[in-house]
Amino acid sequence: MAIGFPFIFILFSLFLVPSFTFPFAPIIPRFPSSAVSAELKQQSHSAPDTLYRTNFFTQILDHFNFNPQSNQTFQQRYLINDTFWGGVKNNAPIFVYTGNEGNIEWFTQNTGFMFENAPSFHALLVFIEHRFYGKSIPFGGNREVAYANASTLGYLSSTQALADYATLIIDLKKNLSATDSPVVVFGGSYGGMLAAWFRMKYPHVSIGALASSAPILHFMDLVSPYIFNSIISQDFRSESENCYKVLKGSWKLIDDIANKPGGLELLQKSFRICKSDDFGAGSLKGWLRTAWVYTAMTDYPTPSNFLNPLPAYPIKKMCEAIDRSETEKRDRLERLHEAASVFYNYTGTATCFDLDDDSDPHDLGGWQWQACTEMIMPVGGSNKHSIFPEYEWSYQDRASSCQFFYNVTPRPHWITTEFGGHAIETVLKRSASNIIFFNGLRDPWSGGGVLKNISKTVVAMVEMRGAHHVDLRYSTKEDPKWLKDVRKQEVKIIASWISQYHQDLHSNN
Amino acid sequence: MAIGFPFIFILFSLFLVPSFTFPFAPIIPRFPSSAVSAELKQQSHSAPDTLYRTNFFTQILDHFNFNPQSNQTFQQRYLINDTFWGGVKNNAPIFVYTGNEGNIEWFTQNTGFMFENAPSFHALLVFIEHRFYGKSIPFGGNREVAYANASTLGYLSSTQALADYATLIIDLKKNLSATDSPVVVFGGSYGGMLAAWFRMKYPHVSIGALASSAPILHFMDLVSPYIFNSIISQDFRSESENCYKVLKGSWKLIDDIANKPGGLELLQKSFRICKSDDFGAGSLKGWLRTAWVYTAMTDYPTPSNFLNPLPAYPIKKMCEAIDRSETEKRDRLERLHEAASVFYNYTGTATCFDLDDDSDPHDLGGWQWQACTEMIMPVGGSNKHSIFPEYEWSYQDRASSCQFFYNVTPRPHWITTEFGGHAIETVLKRSASNIIFFNGLRDPWSGGGVLKNISKTVVAMVEMRGAHHVDLRYSTKEDPKWLKDVRKQEVKIIASWISQYHQDLHSNN
Repeated sequence: MAIGFPFIFILFSLFLVPSFTFPFAPIIPRFPSSAVSAELKQQSHSAPDTLYRTNFFTQILDHFNFNPQSNQTFQQRYLINDTFWGGVKNNAPIFVYTGNEGNIEWFTQNTGFMFENAPSFHALLVFIEHRFYGKSIPFGGNREVAYANASTLGYLSSTQALADYATLIIDLKKNLSATDSPVVVFGGSYGGMLAAWFRMKYPHVSIGALASSAPILHFMDLVSPYIFNSIISQDFRSESENCYKVLKGSWKLIDDIANKPGGLELLQKSFRICKSDDFGAGSLKGWLRTAWVYTAMTDYPTPSNFLNPLPAYPIKKMCEAIDRSETEKRDRLERLHEAASVFYNYTGTATCFDLDDDSDPHDLGGWQWQACTEMIMPVGGSNKHSIFPEYEWSYQDRASSCQFFYNVTPRPHWITTEFGGHAIETVLKRSASNIIFFNGLRDPWSGGGVLKNISKTVVAMVEMRGAHHVDLRYSTKEDPKWLKDVRKQEVKIIASWISQYHQDLHSNN
Repeated sequence: MAIGFPFIFILFSLFLVPSFTFPFAPIIPRFPSSAVSAELKQQSHSAPDTLYRTNFFTQILDHFNFNPQSNQTFQQRYLINDTFWGGVKNNAPIFVYTGNEGNIEWFTQNTGFMFENAPSFHALLVFIEHRFYGKSIPFGGNREVAYANASTLGYLSSTQALADYATLIIDLKKNLSATDSPVVVFGGSYGGMLAAWFRMKYPHVSIGALASSAPILHFMDLVSPYIFNSIISQDFRSESENCYKVLKGSWKLIDDIANKPGGLELLQKSFRICKSDDFGAGSLKGWLRTAWVYTAMTDYPTPSNFLNPLPAYPIKKMCEAIDRSETEKRDRLERLHEAASVFYNYTGTATCFDLDDDSDPHDLGGWQWQACTEMIMPVGGSNKHSIFPEYEWSYQDRASSCQFFYNVTPRPHWITTEFGGHAIETVLKRSASNIIFFNGLRDPWSGGGVLKNISKTVVAMVEMRGAHHVDLRYSTKEDPKWLKDVRKQEVKIIASWISQYHQDLHSNN
């Protein structure tokens, strides 16, 4: 089977490598959902046969203005599992996942933490899909209309999504007569940002948030645009100096070969790229970059299947492949191919890699709109220490490509205006409580995370060996002790929120 | 001069008596701004000759969606006074008034508290006008376009206003290089609701809020629709049982007289109503009701000129007029007229009262739109103990008239979804700090206020003898001790917020 990726979109999703306004083309790895389910069933012993029921909620199109068109509604999907719920009588908790920039089933299936802890908390599980993703498409569910242009896509924003979650949760609790049940929100990556922001903005709807790998500080004037690639570089360098050097030198190597007669054919053959008229050094480099970025994000200590099927410690595996032999140029290409195959062909089923494939199995495409309006997250800069070619991130470049693609001008300071970020310690210390910010320092997104405890109840859990929201994944027998400890600590903190809530409720009645 | 009021609008403003969907017609008392300035100059000794400079800020039309039309801008007015500001070097505070549903100059001139305390705090004073009011009109400042229909009025909402304030404050601080100056927000009535909500939603922009007479709990399922009129009734009854009974019986008296031959002429003559073809018992009753409602709201212990020029303790004055003589029906009309004149003609300059006047000197008209969309505040129900005729408040009536006037369906649960309200003690105890909720129990709006301390830093100041945001008014020599004490306490608390902020800032640097 051919394994492909697209490069026709500009994409900056937290799960999607920065766009071709940056040095490399964007990539969505091919990854059939069935594979996720298979992994899930294999890894999960506590989840019931049916993980969830699918429901739809009639949601309003625009919460914040009252134009006639704002009153249009759409069907918002949410997944629900009440197998373990302790019910109304006990004011048993409700665990809500605040959905990310993609199909909610995918995130649900990769958030085993909630399923595994539901029984002991007697928790109701709810996973809400983000508007404009998956099956939660406004304008009659018609994706072509919804994604047509700014006049329809305009309703895709984080504040609208948060208001959706508040509206849905309040209505759901009312329908269940469970108005006194405490709600804890969970999320990873952009979903984690939403979980944290939800606790900050809607404390009357949620008593606490587990925000995993939530780069809420990854915005302009708050973070270095080099940090993302610096962390990736450090991830590889921590395995071996040679590995780092080979990757760092590979871009020039590829360019040099590509510029020679027959060079492209050699590259295509070496990397097992399927035949294509559009093949070039640029697309190959984008394809490699994606592998390194995604593998850094998902450098988990156990075999996984989130973005692609991967072995445990995949960066180590990549560097092992690269370090194995270092004799001649031809061989170096082969080593790079082998390293890339850790990401693209761990199952060994691919015969060639299809760089023309533009499929989007997790439905992440809407992120490019978000990245062109409010999610101006400076990612992609590379300094001279980076494994990637030097590159200066520029807001102007982003703005230009957004103008070109959507005829839209970003609002680069809106997120910090609405949610804050500057002097976050001073602010949240006095105005927030009950938030866990988990970050794994192997994760390139951790550079924009909250890495210091802010107060007794707004806490940072930082794990040197962790990757992108590793804590939320299903547990496995092979989990290292540090990971078990992280989850134990999270459970303990969440339990303390619920216990405090019940005390508050009791003392107020 | 004739003194008038309109009854062609439906209005539910916190400063405007409920509409003709309720038992009585709405009224805007005539009140020239020049009178306010005169009072202000008379009462204020510390204010400089020029109270403020007028500035305009280019504001975005819709913060929460990214449709092309959202990017339209408008000029938002704000008033600024830097006479007392301690400046950037000292991180001196900025006091911001979060503007209400009307011309910001009017509220500024009636918020002497900020001017009087600016010198000792070395505070910069900023008064921001609410969008769609005063001179802050979107759509090129063209009021006719802005107020044309739902497609333009749709942008008038509390959430947009709060985002306006955040955007403006952040930009202003940046321009002043004063990013570390703490911002304290102030507001009375709807402005107080906005101040409290601003502190809850934008704690990264403001370190604390003085929310005076802010009925943030005056929403459906949180408050009795009878409480507003109950408090007014109790205000009059507390002066004398006879006063209460006369007012309570006046509606039937008026109807009985109106139904007799020559009765309307008698009424018109008795109450000195200017000649009008539209005069009837309904308009007369509405006119009286307005007088009782407004006087209850502004039952201040000193002479004032907020809604109309009034003596100190005006309810007492009204009841004195009513209690003075009780011999015959003709005389009772005269007593009612005399009581009404306390509100409508304290200056003694009116020769007749013009019930056809529909002027809106404070530009409060936009509130009717807000009351038809999100501000579903149950006000106007009267039970059998009320001085007003029995009346059952109904959401359906509101919805029907909003449908009729604007072709809009209210969102009655939106405010509590967005800002909370249910179990507010439990919520704010854990997720908020630095809010003062002041309420005077003479004020009919106090029924929807926060009347209990929530935590050490979210405090309720409740004053039995107080009326609508009396604390924010200029001090006078005649102020009673309780009022001086209230203000002293507020100043002390605000000083503690600023001191704590400077400590936090210091310990973080």
